Amino acid sequence: MKFKIEQKTLLEGLSKVSNAISNKSLIPILSGIKFELTNEGLYLIASDSDMTIKNFIKLDKENIQIEELGGIVIPKNIIEIVRKLEEQILEITVLDGIKILIKTKSGNFYLNGYEKEEYPKMDLSLNKNFITINAKKLKEAVNQISFASSRDEGRPILTGINLRILGDKIELNATDSYRLARNILDLKEPVDESYNIVIPTDNFNNFLKTIDGDSDVELHIFNNKIIFNYENLIFQSRLISGNYPFTSNLFPKEKLFSITLNKTQFYNVVDRASLFTSDKEKNIISLIVNNNTVVIKSGDGIGQVDEKIDINENVEKEFKIDFSSRYMMDSVKTFKNETITLTFLAPDKPIVISDKDSENLMHLVLPIRSY
Amino acid sequence: MKFKIEQKTLLEGLSKVSNAISNKSLIPILSGIKFELTNEGLYLIASDSDMTIKNFIKLDKENIQIEELGGIVIPKNIIEIVRKLEEQILEITVLDGIKILIKTKSGNFYLNGYEKEEYPKMDLSLNKNFITINAKKLKEAVNQISFASSRDEGRPILTGINLRILGDKIELNATDSYRLARNILDLKEPVDESYNIVIPTDNFNNFLKTIDGDSDVELHIFNNKIIFNYENLIFQSRLISGNYPFTSNLFPKEKLFSITLNKTQFYNVVDRASLFTSDKEKNIISLIVNNNTVVIKSGDGIGQVDEKIDINENVEKEFKIDFSSRYMMDSVKTFKNETITLTFLAPDKPIVISDKDSENLMHLVLPIRSY
Repeated sequence: MKFKIEQKTLLEGLSKVSNAISNKSLIPILSGIKFELTNEGLYLIASDSDMTIKNFIKLDKENIQIEELGGIVIPKNIIEIVRKLEEQILEITVLDGIKILIKTKSGNFYLNGYEKEEYPKMDLSLNKNFITINAKKLKEAVNQISFASSRDEGRPILTGINLRILGDKIELNATDSYRLARNILDLKEPVDESYNIVIPTDNFNNFLKTIDGDSDVELHIFNNKIIFNYENLIFQSRLISGNYPFTSNLFPKEKLFSITLNKTQFYNVVDRASLFTSDKEKNIISLIVNNNTVVIKSGDGIGQVDEKIDINENVEKEFKIDFSSRYMMDSVKTFKNETITLTFLAPDKPIVISDKDSENLMHLVLPIRSY
Repeated sequence: MKFKIEQKTLLEGLSKVSNAISNKSLIPILSGIKFELTNEGLYLIASDSDMTIKNFIKLDKENIQIEELGGIVIPKNIIEIVRKLEEQILEITVLDGIKILIKTKSGNFYLNGYEKEEYPKMDLSLNKNFITINAKKLKEAVNQISFASSRDEGRPILTGINLRILGDKIELNATDSYRLARNILDLKEPVDESYNIVIPTDNFNNFLKTIDGDSDVELHIFNNKIIFNYENLIFQSRLISGNYPFTSNLFPKEKLFSITLNKTQFYNVVDRASLFTSDKEKNIISLIVNNNTVVIKSGDGIGQVDEKIDINENVEKEFKIDFSSRYMMDSVKTFKNETITLTFLAPDKPIVISDKDSENLMHLVLPIRSY
């Protein structure tokens, strides 16, 4: 393998696959990046047991000049080295099949690697049937719910994001059993098959971090894995097996009353009340609605606070509910609309947080019995 | 104590003293800030065993409106609370001598504290004789050498910065015994007495971080402490007792040859070579000078690198020296001039790094015998 490439182009390509490199893999070769130079361009592949990323840098006379086809696997240190080189043309040559030389204007960088044949085979072939969705919309939708998924490996299924695809809708769900977030996206074209899958949240976020722009992304769903195909990038993640709880019916169908709040004002009041709570006690604060006023209260060893927000709604009978300020903040900050709605049923029933103008995005936070 | 104050003014004042608040003090009251409201304005004091900061917010009808004099000690959580309040007038009242109420437009924040009489007495009185120096110049000078001081408490004296004041010069020294940095500053007026003191590096940096602007700062030197008096701020630090090594004579008086280098280019080459070294082996790299070329070389398990820099000087006999890339980078990046000079005596003698145009700032890095 021998070719010349712009430092910037190579760095961009390497950065995109870098997320899939495992730091703790027991298979040493998986801490490397596979280079494969073909007549079409350069393929870069990285993988850990959980996900695989394949990025393609298309041959373009200005970007890459191919002198000899071939391949190699190079440890990820190459990313840091390429990053620290100035913008210039790099000449990359494989030596003895297991070493590369990166030649710059002023220096020679030799890096030890592995023969490309030693790299595990990866099947990244696509499906004939796939789902198409705008990447920017998907990114936004997932960012609005992923906070609610669990970090606790005790119930692996909850560490993922649940996708229910039916007709022309994708329903995304995340829950750690204390709170729940749901978002609904419209598909351009309805799908024939329905799907109910769970993607590990970290992998999903990793994929969304890797991409930018707002082209369409293809979702290729297999039995135990999903492949995202976006521009020159293929991103494969395992799926989490098991039954994801059916969460949609957890949103209360009835309500006692709703109030509308300015998102930023409410967030800031909760944030300040949160300073008077402790992690140990789940950062409990109280919300009291009475007539045209919401009062947020909290208190612990350091002191107490009460802060007032005027609302348009008139709630005649005083209503008090206690919840985790942290969970409420996680939820509130993901809304784009400056006006949000809080819906209450009873002091021991979930609070529903939603966009004033849309029911696609809905969050649910369980109350906490305080004493 | 009862007064009204602009949120911004109070936050600024609190932030300035916050650096002196100890997180691990065994004396609970020292985790608080002392408020003292007098007819002139508000004094804020914080202290740990090592340093004390006293900040004065002058009475100014627009900033503070005094209703009742007095004082209290409030835990440092108050900083976070005041930070998270919007820009507005805060009304602060002491209740029962041990609690304050911060009243905002929409809320009441009660914070438990301590009676002001319980706070340890601090003697922060100034000397009649002091040294005056431009704060900005002092900050710059210290920033150019403090990296070289030791983090190892095994030899406490080296964890400080040595100031030798004589006539109209201040010599600043820092060393961890592997490298040495010296800077010389001119005083506007010569001093009568000479001083040789060691200020804990962390405290010195803390003070410099606290101040901005380029007014003059007064240095009041006592037997076992120093007080910096800068605008409305008094900063007191203990001194480290013991004999600081006499470092000036460590700079070689002779030389074999010098080379001049572009600072940024040299830094980047060393930085890249550093990627091929390991912490365990003190990040050793080699510098080889031969005719009009410097070659930087390194290598370890991941590979090898050699990179070339053209120089104006012609060194006829090849010269090779090994040193820590990390120490060299720490040194090189502090220079302001884009052109630096490296001076060599022998492969086992220190390398001197200096500004091409000035001998005030000089660094010394010991070579490392590589194998």
